[in-house]
Amino acid sequence: MKTAVVGLGIVGGSIALGLKENPDYTVFGLTRSESTAEYALSAGMISKGSTRPEEILPEAELVIICLYPDAMESFVRENAAFFRPGAVLMDVTGIKRGIVPQILAAKPPQCDFVFTHPMAGRESRGIKFASADVLKGANFLIVPAEGNRPESLALVEKLAKDCGFGKITRLSPEEHDRGIAFTSQLSHVIAVALVNASRNEAKVEALSGDSYRGITRIASINEDLWAELFMGNREYLLEMIALFEAEVDKIKLRLEESDPEGLKELFRSSARIKNTL
Amino acid sequence: MKTAVVGLGIVGGSIALGLKENPDYTVFGLTRSESTAEYALSAGMISKGSTRPEEILPEAELVIICLYPDAMESFVRENAAFFRPGAVLMDVTGIKRGIVPQILAAKPPQCDFVFTHPMAGRESRGIKFASADVLKGANFLIVPAEGNRPESLALVEKLAKDCGFGKITRLSPEEHDRGIAFTSQLSHVIAVALVNASRNEAKVEALSGDSYRGITRIASINEDLWAELFMGNREYLLEMIALFEAEVDKIKLRLEESDPEGLKELFRSSARIKNTL
Repeated sequence: MKTAVVGLGIVGGSIALGLKENPDYTVFGLTRSESTAEYALSAGMISKGSTRPEEILPEAELVIICLYPDAMESFVRENAAFFRPGAVLMDVTGIKRGIVPQILAAKPPQCDFVFTHPMAGRESRGIKFASADVLKGANFLIVPAEGNRPESLALVEKLAKDCGFGKITRLSPEEHDRGIAFTSQLSHVIAVALVNASRNEAKVEALSGDSYRGITRIASINEDLWAELFMGNREYLLEMIALFEAEVDKIKLRLEESDPEGLKELFRSSARIKNTL
Repeated sequence: MKTAVVGLGIVGGSIALGLKENPDYTVFGLTRSESTAEYALSAGMISKGSTRPEEILPEAELVIICLYPDAMESFVRENAAFFRPGAVLMDVTGIKRGIVPQILAAKPPQCDFVFTHPMAGRESRGIKFASADVLKGANFLIVPAEGNRPESLALVEKLAKDCGFGKITRLSPEEHDRGIAFTSQLSHVIAVALVNASRNEAKVEALSGDSYRGITRIASINEDLWAELFMGNREYLLEMIALFEAEVDKIKLRLEESDPEGLKELFRSSARIKNTL
């Protein structure tokens, strides 16, 4: 299958690498800069690369658009004439409610668009950090839209399996955005806040164990991408921050009241939930 | 050197394994249960094991006490008569201000006591999860006390290096407890709170990426140990929770005010701090 990856950053590049050895796919790259296309070609990630949509899109049976959320809609609208009739388009964006109606309105009617979220981001950015390993066993989310053909959904599921993704889950846009606000966005709020709180603390590195390193790994955050993701999901994210803060406050209260039994109850609860996952 | 490890849980067991192949050390184990001593013997972790202090302590030139904080003082006091004169004793406790004066008052005057904190804990507990790997490259903290002989501190530093620990840092009890409140205890507050907040959220596992897994790994917390650690350091921990919450509130405010530039500023700050570590 002739497959175009649009945007060869950490996600697009990793997907291209995940398909590299697979004879079912011939991978093309559409990039913003010449140098990225050249790098991808020389690394064997793609068999053809260009910065010109008209050289890549008309051939592609599957187009995997790996752009930031705010760039998605204009890319699809401006290139509507270049997509091959009958092609399946897909995205990899981390928020869905805002994007789904925009894209459905912008896409050419003869193409099906499948909304996905491969949960394989990394704190590094750019093609040089792309790696097929990050896809292995990672969760893959599909947000079916009205009008999606079953064959298109099946094609995207096959792609996810071929890349080595683990669990594949179908969700509504609301389920997706609420869930992601909790698991992914709140985790980034926590990491950023913890590292910013370390500003005036001494010897943090010498005093760090795996727990601190595990939380703060993602604090070297891609500011442009994550500002878009947070702003596009702010109501849910604010709700999740409030949920989290209420739980922090329970621990704080037990400490203020010198209540070790109350602390243990909260610890037992988290251990129980964690161990059932 | 004849070395006794008191308490063969995850930390004591891992240290015993770290010394196992080293001809400089002959390792004995003093355990609460017969079955732990038998397991350690049959696994080759120790060359002699017992539940009776009088069978282990009189021979040991170095005694590594790996007990929970609240059990430390009574162990040292009740066994004062059994320690070999001139022996170096050490602990591995995660809090220091409360323990240092207690232990200095309880130890026999002819033994030197070196306070340490190997930052190699794990969320699992018990000898079966012990592993020399967790020590490799981990931070090792020493809190010198008044009267510590330089040879005793050097002996403990050699032990840490022989076990494969990475950076070795000397700190005052206050520096230690404040730092640990931030890096270790606050990280555990965050993990417990986040997992407890997930109680009513749907499909958390299917929606998890590395960021959520990295934060919540430690939420399967040892309730007895961590209740002691938190209670023994509650003032500093409450201060650190407040610092963290103030940073979460900054992010919340930017979201409430729909201020993407303000968010980016906070992200740039965390990325800058993270990248200089």
